Amino acid sequence: MIAKTPTPPYYAVIFTSVRTNIDDGYEEMSNLLVKLAGTYDGFLGIESARNEIGISVSYWKDLESIKKWKQNTKHIIAQKLGKEKWYSAFKTRIAIVNKDFEF
Amino acid sequence: MIAKTPTPPYYAVIFTSVRTNIDDGYEEMSNLLVKLAGTYDGFLGIESARNEIGISVSYWKDLESIKKWKQNTKHIIAQKLGKEKWYSAFKTRIAIVNKDFEF
Repeated sequence: MIAKTPTPPYYAVIFTSVRTNIDDGYEEMSNLLVKLAGTYDGFLGIESARNEIGISVSYWKDLESIKKWKQNTKHIIAQKLGKEKWYSAFKTRIAIVNKDFEF
Repeated sequence: MIAKTPTPPYYAVIFTSVRTNIDDGYEEMSNLLVKLAGTYDGFLGIESARNEIGISVSYWKDLESIKKWKQNTKHIIAQKLGKEKWYSAFKTRIAIVNKDFEF
């Protein structure tokens, strides 16, 4: 689903990843994290897609919200497990959205 | 493939879309556009994934490069056909990447 974000500016966290072939709780953790992020003040929405690579873009009101989410305990555990099991590579980019348009 | 972008800052164009069930040249146009974009000065890379929705993030050196690419004739035709045939909805966001980290 395309996220219904407010008028810019707002922040985007672009997470691009390559999965290993290990599942072992990946789906459950992924769903849990989306739910948890949604409870955070400043969370504006998330878009995700995966085939050869995965791209998840979460949108946030400000850097403070992103920082708080980064410190969430479950999120920290997920980051650790991600490196150990689920991802062979990933890249995270923090960006400010200044303009958007839609159809 | 995760794009090998330089040290920030650089720009990201986040294109999120929902496809219709009409193919009619979509793949060919999509491949052509990626090739064409790659010939542009200022193009830094692209990442794409699709299942329920599609997300393509292209990375650029500056706004000037993005503007030039927006004016490419084939790109303009693709945008028109996209609205007419291939997409039921899309959203484009222009963002400045200020920070990135990888694994």
